[in-house]
Amino acid sequence: MIIRQLFDSGSSTYTYLLGCEATRQAIVVDPVLEMIERDLAELISLNLRLTCTVETHVHADHVTAAWQLRERTGCRVAYPAMEQVACADLQLAVDQPLMAGSVLLLPLPTPGHTAGHHCYLLEHPVPMVFTGDTLLIDGCGRTDLDGGDAETLFRSVHDRLFALPEETLVYPGHDYNQRRVSTIAQERARNQRLKDGVSADQFVQIMAGLDLPPPAKMATAVPANRGCGRCPRSAAARADA
Amino acid sequence: MIIRQLFDSGSSTYTYLLGCEATRQAIVVDPVLEMIERDLAELISLNLRLTCTVETHVHADHVTAAWQLRERTGCRVAYPAMEQVACADLQLAVDQPLMAGSVLLLPLPTPGHTAGHHCYLLEHPVPMVFTGDTLLIDGCGRTDLDGGDAETLFRSVHDRLFALPEETLVYPGHDYNQRRVSTIAQERARNQRLKDGVSADQFVQIMAGLDLPPPAKMATAVPANRGCGRCPRSAAARADA
Repeated sequence: MIIRQLFDSGSSTYTYLLGCEATRQAIVVDPVLEMIERDLAELISLNLRLTCTVETHVHADHVTAAWQLRERTGCRVAYPAMEQVACADLQLAVDQPLMAGSVLLLPLPTPGHTAGHHCYLLEHPVPMVFTGDTLLIDGCGRTDLDGGDAETLFRSVHDRLFALPEETLVYPGHDYNQRRVSTIAQERARNQRLKDGVSADQFVQIMAGLDLPPPAKMATAVPANRGCGRCPRSAAARADA
Repeated sequence: MIIRQLFDSGSSTYTYLLGCEATRQAIVVDPVLEMIERDLAELISLNLRLTCTVETHVHADHVTAAWQLRERTGCRVAYPAMEQVACADLQLAVDQPLMAGSVLLLPLPTPGHTAGHHCYLLEHPVPMVFTGDTLLIDGCGRTDLDGGDAETLFRSVHDRLFALPEETLVYPGHDYNQRRVSTIAQERARNQRLKDGVSADQFVQIMAGLDLPPPAKMATAVPANRGCGRCPRSAAARADA
C-alpha cells in the first residue's frame, strides 16, 4: 500500500493520500483547498489516479479541496451521511466501506466534535485509523462548536476507537507539535484528556474549561465545506487572478 | 501482516512479534528473557510458529530470551554479524534479508550505540523500521558503553535512517514515557538530539554531557547476551526452582 501524510502548515491539517499499488487507484482523506497543487503533483509523481476524496467531517478551520479535485480529476466526493452534505457523490455510513483497489476504508461514526464525524479504519495490510478531530495525539478536537458535545465525543473514543486492537496506528487530522502518528495503546496510556481512568465527567469538565476562541476561518469554512468546498472566497479570488 | 508491540516494564524494552498471515511463520525482534512465557502465549494465541529470533545488538540492560526460545520452539537465533556472537545460528549482514513467509527484514548496519548494532527495515506492506537503541522517540541510545561512539551514531542516523521515506514508521527498542511509534519525518522535525539542523559536533557534546550511571544489569547482561542468553543467573535460578 502507498501512504503519504501531507501537512498544511496554515491549518496544521494532515491530508492522507492512500494508494493501491496494483490498480494505482487512490483516495485522499481531508484535502485542503490551498494545497491542491501539492496533492495533484504527489498523485502524478506516484502514478496514481484519484478516485475519491473523503472528509472526516465538516471542518471549521479550513476549506476542503474536494470540489476542486473533482473538477480537476473527475474523482468522486464522499462525506459522512450524518453530516447531511447534499452535494457529495457518496453518502457514507457504517458498513459501507469506501474502496480504491485494495484500499478499503471502513467508516466509524464518531460524533462529538461535530454531530456527523467519521473516523476511517483501514484493517489491512496493517491496522490504521484516520481519526480526524475525534482523537488527536495527546488531545482531541474541541466540542464547543455547532454539533459538538463532549460526552458524545468521550463515548465515541472509548466505545469505537479504544475498542480497536492496541497496535492500531492512529493518524490524526491535526497536530500542532510536529507529531505524526500514535497507536491506540499509546493514547489509552498517555492522552491527558482521554486515557484510561479519566471518567466521562472529568472529560466534560476538562473540555468545558478550555475556553477557546472561535476558529479564524469558521464563518467562511463551515458554509464552504457544506458545499463540498465549492467557490469559497479564496478559490474565487484565484479564479479571478 | 501481523504485528504485536510487547512491552517489558522492567527494562522498558519493546519486543516486536512479526507474523505472516499466509504461512503463519513469525519472527521476534529483541525478546526479553523474563517475558518468554508472555511471548510464547502470544504466539500460540495468534496461531504462529516462531522461526527466528533476531537481536538489534548485544544489549547491556536486559538479557535476550533467544537461547530459551530456541530451546522451547526450535527456532533459529540471528544476530548482527558485526556483533561477533558465535553461538548465533544466523550471522546477519547488509543485503542478507531475514524472512518468515512474507515478512522480510532488511538489516541496516547502524553502529554507534554498540559497534555492531543493526536496525531492521520492513518495506512491505508499509515501510517500518525497528530501530533498537539507535533511534528512540525524541532520543537515542547512550554512546558511552563498550563499542559506543557518538559521532558514529550520528552518521548512522543521518545516513541510514533519515534517508528513508519520511512516512516510514519508527518502532523503537525502548521508551520510558509510554510512547509507541513515530515516523522518520517526526524524528527529523522534533528529536531534540538528532533533528535536522543539529550538527555532529553539537550531538557529540550533548551525548558527552549526559553523565549516565551504568545500566544496572550490565555486568551480567553483556556476557549473557554474548552467549545468546544462555544460562544467565535468572534462568539458572528458575531452572533450580
